[in-house]
Order: sequence, then C-alpha cells, then structure tokens
Amino acid sequence: MSFAAVQRPVRRELVQVQGLLRDAFRTSIPILNRVGGHVLATRGKKFRPTLLLLTARVRDRLDEPAVLSAAVVEMMHAAALIHDDSVDRSALRRGLPTVNGLWTDEMAIIMGDYLFAHAMGLMVRNRLDHALEVLARVVTEMSCGEAMEFQYAYDLEVTEEQYTEMVRAKTGSLIGAATEIGAGCAAGRSARRPAAQATGRPRRPPQGTRVKFREFGERLGVAFQIVDDLLDYLGDPEVTGKPMGSDLAEGKVTLPLIAALREASEVDRRRLKHLALRRRWTVAQWSQLRTLIEKCGGFAYARACAEGFAGDSGRLLEEALGPGGSRSAPAVAARRALRQAVDYAVRRDR
Amino acid sequence: MSFAAVQRPVRRELVQVQGLLRDAFRTSIPILNRVGGHVLATRGKKFRPTLLLLTARVRDRLDEPAVLSAAVVEMMHAAALIHDDSVDRSALRRGLPTVNGLWTDEMAIIMGDYLFAHAMGLMVRNRLDHALEVLARVVTEMSCGEAMEFQYAYDLEVTEEQYTEMVRAKTGSLIGAATEIGAGCAAGRSARRPAAQATGRPRRPPQGTRVKFREFGERLGVAFQIVDDLLDYLGDPEVTGKPMGSDLAEGKVTLPLIAALREASEVDRRRLKHLALRRRWTVAQWSQLRTLIEKCGGFAYARACAEGFAGDSGRLLEEALGPGGSRSAPAVAARRALRQAVDYAVRRDR
Repeated sequence: MSFAAVQRPVRRELVQVQGLLRDAFRTSIPILNRVGGHVLATRGKKFRPTLLLLTARVRDRLDEPAVLSAAVVEMMHAAALIHDDSVDRSALRRGLPTVNGLWTDEMAIIMGDYLFAHAMGLMVRNRLDHALEVLARVVTEMSCGEAMEFQYAYDLEVTEEQYTEMVRAKTGSLIGAATEIGAGCAAGRSARRPAAQATGRPRRPPQGTRVKFREFGERLGVAFQIVDDLLDYLGDPEVTGKPMGSDLAEGKVTLPLIAALREASEVDRRRLKHLALRRRWTVAQWSQLRTLIEKCGGFAYARACAEGFAGDSGRLLEEALGPGGSRSAPAVAARRALRQAVDYAVRRDR
Repeated sequence: MSFAAVQRPVRRELVQVQGLLRDAFRTSIPILNRVGGHVLATRGKKFRPTLLLLTARVRDRLDEPAVLSAAVVEMMHAAALIHDDSVDRSALRRGLPTVNGLWTDEMAIIMGDYLFAHAMGLMVRNRLDHALEVLARVVTEMSCGEAMEFQYAYDLEVTEEQYTEMVRAKTGSLIGAATEIGAGCAAGRSARRPAAQATGRPRRPPQGTRVKFREFGERLGVAFQIVDDLLDYLGDPEVTGKPMGSDLAEGKVTLPLIAALREASEVDRRRLKHLALRRRWTVAQWSQLRTLIEKCGGFAYARACAEGFAGDSGRLLEEALGPGGSRSAPAVAARRALRQAVDYAVRRDR
C-alpha cells in the first residue's frame, strides 16, 4: 500500500512543512545551504509530520502552530538521521547518498547540530510551549536510544526486553511525540496568549487523551521499527534502497536474530552465532543465516511482534478518538487516514 | 594570573554546578555514565558558568535558577566541544584524551547529542524561560560558526571580517549568552510563576542593561578566542596541552596569518602561502613560518585586536554595572572578579 493515501487529508499542510524546511537553508553560509538542499531533496515520506497533522485535524485544530510543530518534528528527525548515518558510517539511505557519504562526517555533525538548533529556535520564537515540553523529554530519550544501540553493538546476548526498550527510545518516542503534540494542538502556542486566557475554556483535550495519543504513536513507532529490522533481512534491496544485512554488519542485533538465538537448539545456536559474528558474508553464508533464522522461527516471531504492537496501537487510537469527536468531513478523513497509517506501518515493503 | 581568583566569589555555586553535571550521568546506560565520567574529569575551568554566576551575584540574584542556568550553559559548551573535537579529529584537548580519541567519533556524536538534549530538558523542566530564549538563538549561531569554519577551511583568502564574524558566532555568542542570562536572573524562572506575578515589580534589569551585559560577554569571548589562536602559534605545548600548529594543520586560518598575508610583500606572501598550505611541518619549516608572520606584523596585530576587544569588553562592563548597583560585600567581590576576568582572557598563557 502507498503512503500517499494516508497523506491525502493533510497534503496542503505538508507542502507548508516543506516550505519551512526550505527556509532553514536560506542562510548566509553557502555550504550550509548546499548541503541543506541535498538534505531536502533526499528526505523521506514525512511519516512523523503526517501523523502530527492528522492528529490535529481529527480535532479540527490544524492551525499554524500545528504546521510549525510538524516542521520542528521533521527537523529533529532529520538531525537524528544525519547523525545516525554518520555514527553507522552509512554511505546510502534509501539508495541515495547520505551527508557523510557525499561530504564528510564533520559536515554531518555540523548539519545535524544546525537542524536541531534551528528546530529549537522555531519552538521558542513561536512559543510552541507544548511541543517544547514534549520534545525536551523526547530528545533525551532518543539520544539514550542511540547510546543503548552503541552499548549493545555486536552483543549476541542482548535480550528482547533490551531491544524493545531501545527501539521505543530510538524510534517510538519521536513518533509518540508527533501524535501527542498533534493531540495537544490549538493550545500549541503559549498558554500566556491573551486570546486563550480570555475565552477561558480549555482548548486542549484532557491529559488522559493526550497520553493515549502518545502511546498510540509510540507503539506504532515500535511496530514500524521492527518491520524495518525485518526488511533488512527479507526486503528487496532494489526496493528498500539499502544493501541487505547492513544492520548486522554494523553490529545491530535485531529481533529476528534475538528470537532465533533464544529458540534455537544448541547446535543451531552455535551455527547462528558463528555466522552472525562475521561482518561480511558471501551470498551463500547470508542465505544460510537467513535459513537458520527462518528455521528457528525468528522472522515469524518478529512479524508477530510487529503485528502485536500495531494491534495495540490501533486499539489505543480508537480509545483516543473516542465515541464523540468532530464529524466534519476533514476530521472524518483524518480518522480514516490514521487507521490506514497503522496498516501501512506493518504492510509496507520499504 | 590564575583563574581561581576570578572564581572565588562563586566557588560554592561552581561546586553545585559540578553536581548538576554529575547528575546528568546517572543513567541506566553504563556506557553513557562511563564516558560521562571521563567528560567530567577532563572538563576545563568553567569559564562560562563562572561569568554567569558572577553576573547574577553582582545584582544579589544568585539563586537556584542561576545555578541551573550555569550548568545548562556548561553542558551546551561541553556538547559543542565534544562535537568540535570529533569534527577536527583532535585526539587531545589540554593534553587529555578527547571522547573521540578515547572512544570513537560515533560516541562523540552520541555524547554531544545527549548533553545538548539533557540541557534542553533541564531548562524546560525548570522553566528557565529566559535562558531558553537566549540559548535558542545562540545555539543556532554556534552551529553557524562551525559551518563557517568548515566553509573557510584551508582558504587563505579569508578576510579579517569573516574571521571575526566566525569567532563571534563560534565562541563569543555563548559567552555573551552566559553574561546575558546572568544579568536576567531572578527572572530566570517562568514569568508565569505566581510569586513573580504577585509582587508585580519588575525583577529583571531593563533590556538595555541586559544587552550591555551580553555585549560585554561577546567581546570578551572574541578576545579570548583570538588569544587562543595566538597561543596555537606562540604558546608552550607543555602549558597549553595542545601540539603547536594544530589549528593550521586542521585548516584553521586565524588572525595572525590573515593579518600577515594582508601586510606582506609580494615575495613574503608567496612564501607564507607556500608554508601555510602544508599540513605538516618540520621544526625548521614551522619556525620559518612563525618568523615570517612575526616579520609581517601578524602576531602584533592579533595581540592588538585581542586587547582592543578586551578594552571594549571592559568599557561595556562598566556601563552595564552602572554607577548604582548593590554595595553588598558579595556583589562588590563579584564586580571585582568580572574585571579580573577581562584581564585574565588576554593575559593567560593557556
């Protein structure tokens, strides 16, 4: 299934988000604008801004602060990816050259820092207090997720629990931030704003609903990442744009392998470990590793986990949406699109 | 002269700042705590927190938000240094191994990101709105400074104006932030705080005074950096802990060389360029380069510029302090220490 259907109800706002990203690279420093142009041209499908905008639209609250917050979330995501690619020494992402691949690791550090700083500036200048509150917590979680990944690299003893917590911190937290911020929108600007004080009525949904929206996004993010990790073993490199096995080559021990190692017989476990600890594989060796993981049920287990998280995510979404809610045509379209996003996270092939 | 004299009036608060830094590395991730321990053990003299705390003390406003803000500024500085060392591929700083030197560039990226995120979290959780406002602007300037440095690397055509703007963005901006935040303290916590609203009297000094304090810090920072750049040519590596010529080896074309190239005769300029474009030098070649810069007045010019910025900084400090102000013993000691800090920036040998 295509992500375009999910994006349809907020297509116009996504164009505005892209405009805000472009504005970030209108500086007086030529190299920053040049590298920024490359970052813009190779950005992905805007999964996080799409979810934020849809969550805001569900409540008919898709205003300027929501669009600004969506741009901020995308900038933070781009900053994290650019740093990650440098950390992982990846020269390609989706088949396109990375900043460190095309320029240097130095430029990747600078560009990530710049995007992060720019996002922070946008939040403070536009008084996006709610986004600031949520993201101040989440950026720490994200960097802790990166540190955990570093800690667990090449460690075949890593447990499913450790893996899940790492994935939640690294990927789930920011997607949860997107849906939580979207759910809190229209109070995105400072509570000090006179207009908000004057009307007196609470414009944010209750705390409980916001937490539900956050958890919906977090589980969705975990499902999304498990599928990503599965695609590294099973995806078609022509479609994913990523050479197969590149996660394991970078020392990333993910759920299919963790589950297979746990379920394997002594003999198979030894063979699995022996194969997994290589950093390069011949076609035959890689196919042997895949066959072993398959035999020990690693892929089926990981797939079932992804489906489980997606199922939880879908249930949390329904609870968050509740029986009431706006019946306006755009809100109804946004509800449908959020449900499709859950499907998309587990059905996609790249 | 020693920096200890400057620190004396805020020695107790600097211990609290160190405690807050230590708290940042009490996480559940062993590698983060281990690398953090190294970062803490090798941190410098806390120039920025000292200035922030002194500026707050001058107005008898050295309260908890000031200490928190001082820790935040030091974390942002440490984050920037850790990323810079990785960008510059420096294995040593002050004669001690850097994060990228002892671990990897990957760990340096993660640690810098973590410290930056942690600082942001502290500001938001403690409602340090003033610090947040100032630093949101300044972190962008700092990363632009880094980008300019990347842009100008190995470029012998760089002008004094470009160099000064780069130094202001890279170093001056954060020192200016420290003094501006210190001057705005006691309104560091959110204006929404009931107590502040209840008393009704403005607790921050007027905007004009805060801008003066910022400019005092900015000029001081520029003077500080020019002296740093001079020490790279003239300092004793045994004292500075930095191999001589390491800036130029990394492509950093600084004021002594810029001024020398500008003032040199055609013949000397050709010789200077030829020598400067090497990335390694024999002792004889390095001594030849130094002699040429000396002959063309590069060192004298840079020294005069540093003195000029320090002089401006001192004048701005007097204007900011004004004729009134607190006569309490701690405030008087803090005034004296701030004046000594200006002296220290240009007199230090490391």
